[in-house]
Amino acid sequence: MSASTDKAPIDFWFDFSSPYGYLMSEKIDAVAAKYGRKVRWHPILLGIVFKATGSAPLTMQNPAKASYSLHDFARSARFMSIPYRQPSQFPLPTQNAARTYYWLHGQDCSLARQFAHAIFRALYVEDLDISAPDTVLEIAARFGVDRNALAAALQSPEIKTRLKEEVDWAMQAGVFGSPHVIIDGEHFFGADRLPQIEKWLETGGF
Amino acid sequence: MSASTDKAPIDFWFDFSSPYGYLMSEKIDAVAAKYGRKVRWHPILLGIVFKATGSAPLTMQNPAKASYSLHDFARSARFMSIPYRQPSQFPLPTQNAARTYYWLHGQDCSLARQFAHAIFRALYVEDLDISAPDTVLEIAARFGVDRNALAAALQSPEIKTRLKEEVDWAMQAGVFGSPHVIIDGEHFFGADRLPQIEKWLETGGF
Repeated sequence: MSASTDKAPIDFWFDFSSPYGYLMSEKIDAVAAKYGRKVRWHPILLGIVFKATGSAPLTMQNPAKASYSLHDFARSARFMSIPYRQPSQFPLPTQNAARTYYWLHGQDCSLARQFAHAIFRALYVEDLDISAPDTVLEIAARFGVDRNALAAALQSPEIKTRLKEEVDWAMQAGVFGSPHVIIDGEHFFGADRLPQIEKWLETGGF
Repeated sequence: MSASTDKAPIDFWFDFSSPYGYLMSEKIDAVAAKYGRKVRWHPILLGIVFKATGSAPLTMQNPAKASYSLHDFARSARFMSIPYRQPSQFPLPTQNAARTYYWLHGQDCSLARQFAHAIFRALYVEDLDISAPDTVLEIAARFGVDRNALAAALQSPEIKTRLKEEVDWAMQAGVFGSPHVIIDGEHFFGADRLPQIEKWLETGGF
């Protein structure tokens, strides 16, 4: 066993409806791998977190901040060289996508990661309505997932409970937004903290 | 007249009580100068902006975000190689410092800039209570400013109106927080947008 595999994984929380979560999702694995780290992905529902903390999505706050945020999503994507198109429906519910992620993760964590990337890109590149169960089934089917089995799983109490538990666990861990990354107990909020994350991984803390 | 002096100045809004405003204040002039730009500094009162927009300081939002923010202020300062100590009193009222800035600016804009740096460093390095009129007078006196003249000016309706107008003007320009920078109509919010500001100045937009 090499030294690098002894290091604890990085935790990455996000909502599929979060533009900055998408930007982080396109970079975090490669940055972590550079320093011998793996990343655990945790889709959550920000709506529940915001309700518990009295927060609101950036585009539903005051008009000046909402307008700036829409502009900054696209500019930050260009700055990070990531394709981005503002979705027609935004923000939108993501429980079907998140539940599918955890169901797939129980079978094949690599497949779950591919699915998560596909969901983000479906929303932020293809402009698909990922809130619709049919869209989620369609995207999962691209990876050979059985649509009927997934459709049935999405109705099961187990998968609903699993997502609920993940959201509770995130809040207990101190997660208050998306993306939220924890490395060895150190919290980083926002895609714009990626340079600090990289320096932290490189230096072991600063 | 050289080409560089033809470029419009950059506008930089901040509250003296804003940690990220302080971080930006330590960097923005040098970054702008690299690309032949000058910066106009505009201290404002975020309390009035937040009241108008229904916002709140980061440390007065939910406990998880408040705790993270306090940690991130200091870490971001270390990341940017800027001295930082969390003030004992925080956040705190800054109208005396802001009014003094505009009064000095009417006489000597270079002196006003030096005073602004001194106020930020008094709060974030020396941990002085810059809300107190005596502290503001003391800091201004370091630059040879007449204490009695300044004390009288701080009571004048003119200087109160001037600050009020600056806050109104900021809100009309779309300012919703601190630091807020506008370059040729392009808005940048947060000290963490400094890399985007630099790329914008270098490339003329991206």
